[in-house]
Amino acid sequence: MQKIRLGIVGYGNLGRGVQYAASQNEDMEVVAVFTRRNPAEVKTILPIKVDAIENIEKYKGQIDVMILCGGSATDLPQQSVAIVKMFNTVDSFDTHAKIPEYFDALDAAAKESGHIGAMSIGWDPGLFSLARLYFGASLEQGNTYTFWGKGVSQGHSDAIRRVKGVKDARQYTIPVESALERVRNGENPVLTTREKHTRECFVVAEEGADLERIEREIKQMPNYFADYDTTVHFISEEELQKNHSGIPHGGFVLRSGTSAIGDRFLMEFSLKLDSNPNFTSSVLVAFARAVARLYAEGMRGAVTAFDIAPKYLSPLSFEEQRKQLL
Amino acid sequence: MQKIRLGIVGYGNLGRGVQYAASQNEDMEVVAVFTRRNPAEVKTILPIKVDAIENIEKYKGQIDVMILCGGSATDLPQQSVAIVKMFNTVDSFDTHAKIPEYFDALDAAAKESGHIGAMSIGWDPGLFSLARLYFGASLEQGNTYTFWGKGVSQGHSDAIRRVKGVKDARQYTIPVESALERVRNGENPVLTTREKHTRECFVVAEEGADLERIEREIKQMPNYFADYDTTVHFISEEELQKNHSGIPHGGFVLRSGTSAIGDRFLMEFSLKLDSNPNFTSSVLVAFARAVARLYAEGMRGAVTAFDIAPKYLSPLSFEEQRKQLL
Repeated sequence: MQKIRLGIVGYGNLGRGVQYAASQNEDMEVVAVFTRRNPAEVKTILPIKVDAIENIEKYKGQIDVMILCGGSATDLPQQSVAIVKMFNTVDSFDTHAKIPEYFDALDAAAKESGHIGAMSIGWDPGLFSLARLYFGASLEQGNTYTFWGKGVSQGHSDAIRRVKGVKDARQYTIPVESALERVRNGENPVLTTREKHTRECFVVAEEGADLERIEREIKQMPNYFADYDTTVHFISEEELQKNHSGIPHGGFVLRSGTSAIGDRFLMEFSLKLDSNPNFTSSVLVAFARAVARLYAEGMRGAVTAFDIAPKYLSPLSFEEQRKQLL
Repeated sequence: MQKIRLGIVGYGNLGRGVQYAASQNEDMEVVAVFTRRNPAEVKTILPIKVDAIENIEKYKGQIDVMILCGGSATDLPQQSVAIVKMFNTVDSFDTHAKIPEYFDALDAAAKESGHIGAMSIGWDPGLFSLARLYFGASLEQGNTYTFWGKGVSQGHSDAIRRVKGVKDARQYTIPVESALERVRNGENPVLTTREKHTRECFVVAEEGADLERIEREIKQMPNYFADYDTTVHFISEEELQKNHSGIPHGGFVLRSGTSAIGDRFLMEFSLKLDSNPNFTSSVLVAFARAVARLYAEGMRGAVTAFDIAPKYLSPLSFEEQRKQLL
């Protein structure tokens, strides 16, 4: 079997996760990691070639799909349109508000060069998006709800770290169980931001810092915390390391709807993940398989999870899929 | 907007459900119902033309997709290959063991005449199949479990009715909660048939019948009950009508897996349905939309849910999908 040859662009949590996930898939091999750092200083978790991002063009013809593991704020908008001119790409772009313009730019660059750029792949956007689409199409009359957590929000943890007197912090987003139950009961509630999620913060303060001020500044922070019921716990650095070093996450997509004569239906998809980046990367690898196959079939341009027929994701043959999974 | 013109072949629970579901979708219209019975004797739940199945050919050019609502045992294997020679079709063929041969026959007939035959659409096979495929592709190392219920099994209810002295019966399939919990806990258990589901039977006996014999015959019935923990309740005809006249169903697809370094992941999809046929028909209508669009794009042959890119199912435009659902 000809393996699918992957490149990894960016070697943070997600890049490492892609290497782990690829190692679990027999039809995948990672050819190289590309970094903006000094390649000699990048230690990979499994032995693999590391090269400078400037040298990426030399790998044309040697890599089928580049998995872009940079951040959505600044890395991906620049990298994706540049790299898709040379390779097929898969990325996890997740700035929801900017998806339309990101799609248009990626689509133009991908079509111009004759590649596929798969964007917004992972679990949200990604598998949760698929649930929202399948659920909505299956039940025309109903309401869809997305809840996140319990899980670590990197963005909110970073926001706390920017408060004066804070040494380190970890923030958990927690779905409100009673709100979930109201949805499951078919009440079709209208839920405010505050009613859907709470935020729990574990904060390591610098010695002598004013804890009351820190707590107040966190709870009043606009966009991040002001609209939520937030609790703040001050803990030691050791406790943070011991009990809060993981990056778990998860969530729920629910759709509650009715038939024309009032039968009630509930559809629910949930994820519970010990490691957010290691699961996201596992999804990225499955979509890299689809991209390689669809490229061989002649597809070109930007795509999302919505554009990809499910059969392309599975390592099983189409016959095996029908026999074993249908 | 040009509506998608549907035909309904067979007017039992599922056919009625298709009419209800189509009435909830603005881009759909039902042109006619086709029946093997005397059309004059078929009362439809909403006003609609009813015609004899023999006249179906006269509707060529007037119907975009025929939704086949017959049974999998004898109706669909005959009807699908005949009707796909004249129309695009969608069916809910669910005899798992015969799916490969059914696919081959449908594919040959559909390609010969230049149509699409979408098969095994509904929730299982259908949405549950999709969950098994997406889950398996997303988590290469893990185990997938399907549980059904709590819900009415028509096949098992019919089997009880064939026992001597039984006037009427309703059988519920119930997932074993402790088995579900073991899967959710990541134990990756190997579960026997008996450990996954129990069966609960509500039986109306004929007057003077030997209840002990009936209960014994039910519990010992091979294939249907012998491999399960089965309970039998004898109730009155009135009680059966009052408390057991619905056809609820549902179930769970779970996949429990791990990353290469042992992070645990749980994926879960569940359905809770007041009416099995009315939900199944709602899914059939969504796939009829996809079939009409894919036919216009030139697709031909037999397809399953695995072959259809999700975007074709939603009534939203592709741009709206990316903006609102991704």
